[in-house]
Amino acid sequence: MSSTMGQVIRCRAAVAWEAGKPLVIEEVEVAPPQAMEVRLKILYTALCHTDVYFWEAKGQTPVFPRIFGHEAGGIVESVGEGVTELSLGDHVLPVFTGECGECRHCKSEESNMCDLLRINTDRGVMIGDGKSRFSIKGKPIYHFVGTSTFSEYTVVHVGCVAKINPQAPLDKVCVFSCGISTGLGAALNVAKPKPGSVVAIFGLGAVGLAAAEGARLSGASRIIGIDLNPSRFEIAKKFGVTEFLNPKDHDKPIQEVIAAMTDGGVDRSIECTGSISAMISAFECVHDGWGVAVLVGVPNKDDAFKTHPMNLLNERTLKGTFFGNYKPRSDIPVVVEKYMKKELELELEKFITHEVSFLEINKAFEYMLAGESLRCIIRMEP
Amino acid sequence: MSSTMGQVIRCRAAVAWEAGKPLVIEEVEVAPPQAMEVRLKILYTALCHTDVYFWEAKGQTPVFPRIFGHEAGGIVESVGEGVTELSLGDHVLPVFTGECGECRHCKSEESNMCDLLRINTDRGVMIGDGKSRFSIKGKPIYHFVGTSTFSEYTVVHVGCVAKINPQAPLDKVCVFSCGISTGLGAALNVAKPKPGSVVAIFGLGAVGLAAAEGARLSGASRIIGIDLNPSRFEIAKKFGVTEFLNPKDHDKPIQEVIAAMTDGGVDRSIECTGSISAMISAFECVHDGWGVAVLVGVPNKDDAFKTHPMNLLNERTLKGTFFGNYKPRSDIPVVVEKYMKKELELELEKFITHEVSFLEINKAFEYMLAGESLRCIIRMEP
Ligand SMILES: NC(=O)c1ccc[n+]([C@@H]2O[C@H](COP(=O)([O-])OP(=O)(O)OC[C@H]3O[C@@H](n4cnc5c(N)ncnc54)[C@H](O)[C@@H]3O)[C@@H](O)[C@H]2O)c1
Ligand SMILES: NC(=O)c1ccc[n+]([C@@H]2O[C@H](COP(=O)([O-])OP(=O)(O)OC[C@H]3O[C@@H](n4cnc5c(N)ncnc54)[C@H](O)[C@@H]3O)[C@@H](O)[C@H]2O)c1
Ligand SMILES: [Zn+2]
Ligand SMILES: [Zn+2]
Ligand SMILES: [Zn+2]
Ligand SMILES: [Zn+2]
Repeated sequence: MSSTMGQVIRCRAAVAWEAGKPLVIEEVEVAPPQAMEVRLKILYTALCHTDVYFWEAKGQTPVFPRIFGHEAGGIVESVGEGVTELSLGDHVLPVFTGECGECRHCKSEESNMCDLLRINTDRGVMIGDGKSRFSIKGKPIYHFVGTSTFSEYTVVHVGCVAKINPQAPLDKVCVFSCGISTGLGAALNVAKPKPGSVVAIFGLGAVGLAAAEGARLSGASRIIGIDLNPSRFEIAKKFGVTEFLNPKDHDKPIQEVIAAMTDGGVDRSIECTGSISAMISAFECVHDGWGVAVLVGVPNKDDAFKTHPMNLLNERTLKGTFFGNYKPRSDIPVVVEKYMKKELELELEKFITHEVSFLEINKAFEYMLAGESLRCIIRMEP
Repeated sequence: MSSTMGQVIRCRAAVAWEAGKPLVIEEVEVAPPQAMEVRLKILYTALCHTDVYFWEAKGQTPVFPRIFGHEAGGIVESVGEGVTELSLGDHVLPVFTGECGECRHCKSEESNMCDLLRINTDRGVMIGDGKSRFSIKGKPIYHFVGTSTFSEYTVVHVGCVAKINPQAPLDKVCVFSCGISTGLGAALNVAKPKPGSVVAIFGLGAVGLAAAEGARLSGASRIIGIDLNPSRFEIAKKFGVTEFLNPKDHDKPIQEVIAAMTDGGVDRSIECTGSISAMISAFECVHDGWGVAVLVGVPNKDDAFKTHPMNLLNERTLKGTFFGNYKPRSDIPVVVEKYMKKELELELEKFITHEVSFLEINKAFEYMLAGESLRCIIRMEP
């Protein structure tokens, strides 16, 4: 039993007071976990572009003040009523989408969109009682996607927590908590390229490069990376990407350039940009007859996906995925285990381009906005 | 050897001289088949809505004068150079899309969109020499989708001809030449509902009702039919459709009505209307997590499929199909054979609501435009 169990914990958290303004490290109160919740001590967290979108709140609903962060690794500090599968000291990855284990989605082999715990970017409170567990001098600070890992302690629904091998290095496997699983799963679980396939990856951030790794592991013969940021091309070579295209270098729509390079289109494409134009290109660049396009990027609220229906009638397939279709509680421990046993040939180190201390968290935002980082690990302890 | 082999045949054809104007029965000259072509004597043909769109030429390229017709059954009259697998007297179904047997699509298990012989609605000539085989007093009359079955004789590429069991009744199995295979295959080969699934069918014409039959054969537990024409509801009951919705009876978008009736959406939907709004509804009415929507209807040239990308991200799948993904030469003979052996529990008679003589062909258009017919068989011989 931890000495803090049942107590409010005072700790540091990086609070976003306003859209687009630097986070401020504040002392916050973190209430004890309620029924079916756990309180986690976060050791490492990383920045994903999804945090940035909702912090910028340009194409998204502004919910402030808020504690962002959803890619992290930590240790269970205490558990609320009814929690049986987790206990003090367990090593865990919190996940932005959950698994209640009971609903139609959790029981379906195809879906990970749990009715109870699926991602909800506009909700800033816990689902149990509709309240926040964070406060500053009694005033609530909102949660983000049920994780809010930019805090030394956070409260998460038990269904959003993957219990992993305690031997796994949390400063590395924390990136399985979102980006890497998302990209990898988009390739392995959703696009499923056959050996010898030609695969296009739109967006060569951590998510896209994890998708490229998935394509490589599937035996793709060509992996074409598309990005607006040419500095991504050098780094992407380390991830099995074999060819590069910058839409800015071409007058024609990039889907036409790709079709010309690939005898009519790629076998699979995976979009990891969040840009609606890239989503449309990613769909239109797949080969008719058998091509499959998978959307991963988080769109703006008012975006519209638009294409000529003949592109669909020509036997193309279009689908989307959250978290690479992995079920957080059932699948992520297995992914981590395979990584530990080297059955999953993936070097997490390659994704971790930067590291900062918690006090420097705003630097992580700068690196991502400048397109310099893939993943910047934020160390909670100095 | 037929006495007409190698000769121009003079026969009757129903010529569309202008968009939307009644066809005129004319005497036409039908040139002999060239290399890799066959000349067919058409015995029965039926009207599909695709003929009507291109005859109306409202949302489509006008190509006139033209001989329409693509759902038919006939007998080989003569074959051109290089044709080895068909000979005089073979019973055949011409198909609007072909199978060369050599291209990547023909070699792929997933596609039937042959590079050489896939549907091309704007081409009015044979692919071999870019010329028409039909003329009136030396002036060319254009072909339609390589079949032009509204003629006593027509010339078709050998790759667009399915050789079927000569015991099969051509006045019935001719509907496998397009509509019934298209709808059935959209269900069995593309949507693939699991037993117990809830399936929505948009458009209860022959194609939609064949899709409903496919859903029934797959063990669907509920088949929801959606049509703007309420007279379709009575007839659809004979095809296993269990529930009916008319979008005109509801203020809300029909996808919302369907979601409310089905605990969040159907497992599979199949759109067989050609209406872009129905295509969008058919996509948006499938359940997130696992729903699959299949588009079958032929859209207008300037239609745009538009949806919020979040509908895709929520793990829905969208795809389209031509001819139910059947390969005409490999698969259709097997489908006919299964029908003959009663392994395919399908009553073609239910689809054949009308029958007219060739001279009355314009009646078939009237029946379809009035929403009265499913399939109207046109008898070429009096
Ligand atoms: N579906 C999910 O479960 C899920 C999970 C995590 C992240 N995401 C989303 O995945 C996307 C990628 O995340 P990330 O953390 O790797 O971000 P990132 O910023 O590191 O990478 C995105 C890359 O896309 C490139 N890009 C942007 N617009 C482009 C365009 N029009 N064409 C080509 N390239 C373009 C950028 O230059 C950048 O290199 C984001 O949209 C994020 O919100 C989705
Ligand atoms: N993809 C292919 O290979 C292929 C092959 C054959 C036919 N088709 C297409 O399939 C469609 C159906 O053909 P058919 O011969 O059965 O036509 P049909 O006219 O007999 O049936 C179409 C039905 O759709 C209904 N409908 C029209 N708009 C609607 C809407 N917005 N909502 C609900 N219902 C609506 C009509 O009332 C009608 O009952 C056509 O678009 C045709 O061109 C496609
Ligand atoms: Zn993320
Ligand atoms: Zn669930
Ligand atoms: Zn047709
Ligand atoms: Zn072919």
